[in-house]
Amino acid sequence: MINTLIKNIQKKNAPIVVGLDPMMNYIPEYIQRNAFEEYGETLKGAAEAIWIYNKGIIDATYDLIPAVKPQIAMYEQFGIEGLVAFHKTCAYAKEKGLVVIGDIKRGDIGSTSTAYAVGHLGKVKVGSKAYAGFDEDFVTVNPYLGTDGVKPFVDICKEENKGIFVLVKTSNPSSGEFQDKLVDGRPLYELVAEKVVEWGNECMGDRYSNVGCVVGATYPEMGKVLRKLMPKSYILVPGYGAQGGKAEDLVHYFNEDGLGAIVNSSRGIIAAYKQDKYSSFGEANYADASRQAVVDMIADINGALGR
Amino acid sequence: MINTLIKNIQKKNAPIVVGLDPMMNYIPEYIQRNAFEEYGETLKGAAEAIWIYNKGIIDATYDLIPAVKPQIAMYEQFGIEGLVAFHKTCAYAKEKGLVVIGDIKRGDIGSTSTAYAVGHLGKVKVGSKAYAGFDEDFVTVNPYLGTDGVKPFVDICKEENKGIFVLVKTSNPSSGEFQDKLVDGRPLYELVAEKVVEWGNECMGDRYSNVGCVVGATYPEMGKVLRKLMPKSYILVPGYGAQGGKAEDLVHYFNEDGLGAIVNSSRGIIAAYKQDKYSSFGEANYADASRQAVVDMIADINGALGR
Repeated sequence: MINTLIKNIQKKNAPIVVGLDPMMNYIPEYIQRNAFEEYGETLKGAAEAIWIYNKGIIDATYDLIPAVKPQIAMYEQFGIEGLVAFHKTCAYAKEKGLVVIGDIKRGDIGSTSTAYAVGHLGKVKVGSKAYAGFDEDFVTVNPYLGTDGVKPFVDICKEENKGIFVLVKTSNPSSGEFQDKLVDGRPLYELVAEKVVEWGNECMGDRYSNVGCVVGATYPEMGKVLRKLMPKSYILVPGYGAQGGKAEDLVHYFNEDGLGAIVNSSRGIIAAYKQDKYSSFGEANYADASRQAVVDMIADINGALGR
Repeated sequence: MINTLIKNIQKKNAPIVVGLDPMMNYIPEYIQRNAFEEYGETLKGAAEAIWIYNKGIIDATYDLIPAVKPQIAMYEQFGIEGLVAFHKTCAYAKEKGLVVIGDIKRGDIGSTSTAYAVGHLGKVKVGSKAYAGFDEDFVTVNPYLGTDGVKPFVDICKEENKGIFVLVKTSNPSSGEFQDKLVDGRPLYELVAEKVVEWGNECMGDRYSNVGCVVGATYPEMGKVLRKLMPKSYILVPGYGAQGGKAEDLVHYFNEDGLGAIVNSSRGIIAAYKQDKYSSFGEANYADASRQAVVDMIADINGALGR
């Protein structure tokens, strides 16, 4: 699957991913109104609004971008109906040729991690049949439980040609509380990075591994070190834009082949119409604002990369 | 919510929780057959089988136990339909007076953790209305992202009188890979434990905090130390029974007041009829076998505690 992601990135010349993390207050009033008229102010109504909103953004941007990254929490908060919208969003993005990175940050002990991996990347057996539950292309994985929490995901990736991004250094302010703690003089996230290399060696694509990692844009010095520690791991980079990460900081997240990183923006793209910069689009044209924000983001990143 | 859990534990004299982690191969043949006859070999068919199986176990054990702990991964692998079964199971257990601990191991950055907390412990706003998505009483939380990944859960716990159990030292063989790493001479899990105390002080019940922790039964020496480090945190203890943890090892997970720990068993209870010890019940009476396994587990734990 990493080969497909790289092919998509090269075809569109866009090392970016759009985070589909809908909040109700991002969704234009008229979309909410229509959904509530049809389904009432219910979880189903909210899910419909989210789905219509996402569809608009995908339709307006899919030709420019290689991938989307729906954050499942934003759907899960609306219970079953929200997860139906998540599932529809993933399926629709795939129809449009996009790689889908499910930002699910799951991780548990052996057989339980297998169940998550099966549900999100593989197929579950029901009698003589087998079904994909959510069917993303990649998912994010939390490493706190160690190898036997992560390996089941790697095994399913091998079987199904899918991929994962393991949390190494997250973008949030308190990520250092545990991740930066020094173990024999080295931060914990470097130890996790070494395991990412180990897990990744088992599941290689052509040049990069199907086991990637997450390193926040907000810690560029660490990104530089981690890039070198995991030369064959694609880095999924959250924290650009709204969280403060800048394009020039991200140059060292890439390898010399110009590959190796994919930068996420969520709010900065999907709620672009709420920014002063794009406010002239107006709420009705929120998707066009998102398209323009994608164009600008690609130019910003490629500019910093000197291409 | 911790007060309610303690009241339930005392009323039933049973510091245990039944892990509802259904695997298809645990579910009696006739339940699967009936479900598949009604819905076909589909995800809905699988979800129906899981629900009927769970209902049988709850009906047979609810008068003996204070709580259940459904492991969401086992449902999520069946996609939306599986999560419908999860939701029904949680709701039914609550109807029967049980405390529901959602074993979800979620954790993300700020606003995303808020969404998980809202979806599982709180209520989400839809227009002028508010709805509970999954509505567990407690959930398990992964601490790898630090305070701003955990605090949103604590905030919702305060608003809604709910609780969490933060992963400190998990029961699996490779849990030590990161959790045991020494930071200034002390294992990382002790640093997490100190944060659990800090988070817990903000959200106290009468004697114990609504912020508990997870410490595996498979590491009794660490459990002994962690008990003292987090005197007001309830310890949710996985790893008893099938994973190898023994009752006599668990004595030090309890405080001198006889409280402070709740021991989970999943497979050992819900698939009891598959063990030689309970095989005379037969498949048709799988729920009675589970009841007997609960009786035996309570006797085993209380025996070790000398009561």
